[in-house]
Amino acid sequence: MELIKPIEWIDGKVRWLDVRLLPWEETYRETTDYKRIAQAIKEMEIRGAPAIGIAAAYGFALAVYYCRCSSYDELKKEAEKAVSVLGSTRPTAYNLFWALDYMKTRLEKYINEGRSLQEIKENIVKDAIRLHEKDIETNMKIGEYGNQLIEDGDTILTHCNAGSLATGGFGTALGVIRKAWMSGKNIRVIATETRPLLQGARLTVWELKKDGIPVTLITDNMVGYLMSKNIISKIVVGADRILLSGHVANKIGTYTISVLAVHHQVPFYVAAPTSTIDTKSRINEVVIEERNPDEVRSIMGRLSITLPDIDVYNPAFDITPPENVTAIITEKGIARKPFEKSLRKILEG
Amino acid sequence: MELIKPIEWIDGKVRWLDVRLLPWEETYRETTDYKRIAQAIKEMEIRGAPAIGIAAAYGFALAVYYCRCSSYDELKKEAEKAVSVLGSTRPTAYNLFWALDYMKTRLEKYINEGRSLQEIKENIVKDAIRLHEKDIETNMKIGEYGNQLIEDGDTILTHCNAGSLATGGFGTALGVIRKAWMSGKNIRVIATETRPLLQGARLTVWELKKDGIPVTLITDNMVGYLMSKNIISKIVVGADRILLSGHVANKIGTYTISVLAVHHQVPFYVAAPTSTIDTKSRINEVVIEERNPDEVRSIMGRLSITLPDIDVYNPAFDITPPENVTAIITEKGIARKPFEKSLRKILEG
Repeated sequence: MELIKPIEWIDGKVRWLDVRLLPWEETYRETTDYKRIAQAIKEMEIRGAPAIGIAAAYGFALAVYYCRCSSYDELKKEAEKAVSVLGSTRPTAYNLFWALDYMKTRLEKYINEGRSLQEIKENIVKDAIRLHEKDIETNMKIGEYGNQLIEDGDTILTHCNAGSLATGGFGTALGVIRKAWMSGKNIRVIATETRPLLQGARLTVWELKKDGIPVTLITDNMVGYLMSKNIISKIVVGADRILLSGHVANKIGTYTISVLAVHHQVPFYVAAPTSTIDTKSRINEVVIEERNPDEVRSIMGRLSITLPDIDVYNPAFDITPPENVTAIITEKGIARKPFEKSLRKILEG
Repeated sequence: MELIKPIEWIDGKVRWLDVRLLPWEETYRETTDYKRIAQAIKEMEIRGAPAIGIAAAYGFALAVYYCRCSSYDELKKEAEKAVSVLGSTRPTAYNLFWALDYMKTRLEKYINEGRSLQEIKENIVKDAIRLHEKDIETNMKIGEYGNQLIEDGDTILTHCNAGSLATGGFGTALGVIRKAWMSGKNIRVIATETRPLLQGARLTVWELKKDGIPVTLITDNMVGYLMSKNIISKIVVGADRILLSGHVANKIGTYTISVLAVHHQVPFYVAAPTSTIDTKSRINEVVIEERNPDEVRSIMGRLSITLPDIDVYNPAFDITPPENVTAIITEKGIARKPFEKSLRKILEG
C-alpha cells in the first residue's frame, strides 16, 4: 500500500498535488508564497478539512520563513496577515482555524522565549512539518479504532473523499477502510460520486483502486435504492467540523445519507481527528459555505450541463444532527451518545 | 405558454426532438421505420413513460402503415414483430406495454370488422395520433387536479423531467406546476439535476425557463439540506409504473426524496396518467432496468469523470412504497391511501 502525499514541505517550498485535475492529470504545484497556498485552498486544489489545516500551517510557515523582518513586531505583523488571508479561504472546515491557532501559539511561545528570528523561522517550519506528520499518525489511529467497528464481509458506503487526498496522507474515513482491508477483512466500498465537484468519482475511486480495495461507483441519488436492497451494511464519512453536541458539518449530501441510514437502520460513522472538534461554536454559528453556482452549472468547468444563466443553490456542506450519528471515531477513541459527554472525555483524555 | 411537441406524426413520418442533445442542440429526427423508433426509445432520444408510450404507438403505426402485406396474416405478423421489437426497449415504463396493447386491440378490432388493408392502415395511424392527442388532454386534466393541491407561495421540488419532453406535451408533474403557474399562483420550482442523464439540469430547467416559471437547479444530494432548511413545501414527481398497491417506480433518486419527505413531513405527490397504472404486476415482478455503466462513468458520453474501468451500479429506477406517497394525481382524480381502493375506483370511474 503506497502512501499518497497530497502536500509536502520540501527544500523550503510547499509542494502539493492539484486534486482538481484528478483523475485526468497528476499535476504537482509548488510555492514559497503563502498567498498562493490561500488560493490553492480557496480554489480547492487542496481540499478536505485535515489537508486544509496542514496547508494552512505550511502557509503560516512560509509567511514566517520568508519574512523580511528585523523585529518581533514585524514578524508578528506578517504572521497575523497570513492568518487573516489563510483564515478567510473557507469558513466551514474547522481544522483550518485550529491549525492557524496552533501555529500562532507556537510563534508566541518562541517570541516569549526570546529566540532569535532565524531560530524562530526554523522552528516554525519544523512545527508545521510535525503537525503534518502528526496528522498521518492520527489517521492511522483513527483507522485502528474504526477497524474495531468493521466486520468481515461489510459493504461500506462513503461519501465525498475523506482519504489520503483529504488529509496529510492515509485518510480518516478511508483510513478506517484501509485498516480494515489491511487487517484482512473482506470488505467492499460503495463510493458516491459527490456532485458538484465529484470527489467520490475522481478521488476516492482513484485512491481505492491504487490500493486494490474493491470499489463500486454510484451517483448520489442511488443511495436510498441500495439501502432499500440491503446492499449497504455500514456508512463511514469524514467531517469538516464537529460540535460538542455531536452535530457534524460535512460535504453536502451527508445529511441526506444520514436520514436514509436512520430509516434503514444502517450504522452511520463519522471518522475525524479531534482537531475537527469545535468546542466553542453552537449550531447556529456554523457558517455553511456557498460556492460559485458555476460548479453546479458545469462539470469541473469542463462541460456545461444546463442553461448558462440558470439560478442555482450551491451549499458546499450540510449538518447532520447527533441523533443520526451512530458513533464518532477519533484518534483518541470512539465517541458514542451522548456526544457532549463522550467528546469532552476524549478531548480531556 | 408555448406547447413543446417532443414527438409528432407528420406527412407519413414520425418526427421527434432528440432530447439527449438538449440543452446543447435542438435537433429533430424523423423516420418511417419502426425499428428506428425502438432505437430512439432504447437510447433515450425519446424518454419519459408517457412519451415512450406515444412513440411505441407511432412505431406500431409505422409498422402497419408501411407493411408490404397482402393479407391479414401478414399484417398481423408484421405488427407482432413490431410489438416485440418496441416492447423490448425499456422494461420499466408501463405506458410502453399499455400503448402496444391498445394498438394491438385496435388492429384486431379492424380485422374482425373485415376492413380493407388500406382502411386499417389509415385507421391505425389515426388511432396513434388520437392516443397522442389524448395524452395531452390527460396531462391538462392531471394539471387541473394537481393544481388543487398547490398553494400560493409554494416551493415545489421535482425530480428528473416529467414535463412536455416526457409526454405528448404539457407534462405530468410539470403539468401540475404549469397549471398552478397559469392560474396565477406565485410558485417556485427546485429542480434536481438527476444524474446520470441529467434530465433535471438539461430538460426541466429548459422547459420551465421557456415558460418563465422561476426555477432553481440543485445537485441530487442537496435535497435533504433544503428540506432541513424548510425551503421545500411540496414535492411533485412523475412515474414510470404505478402498482395497485401504490408502489411507484420512477427515476432513480425518487425513493431517496420520498424518505426525506416523510422525515420532514413534506407532502409527496405523484402525477401520472392512468395508463401508467399496472393492475397486474406485483412488486417483486417489476423489472428495474440496469443501464450502461458508462452513463455513470461519464457525463452524457461527453466527459469522462472517473477511471475508465471502474465498477459501477446503474439502476435507472427505484420503487417508492405507498407509505411514502401522499397522493397520486391522475386525469380521473386524486387517489389517496389506501391506494388499492382509490386507484381501483379511479380506474373504474
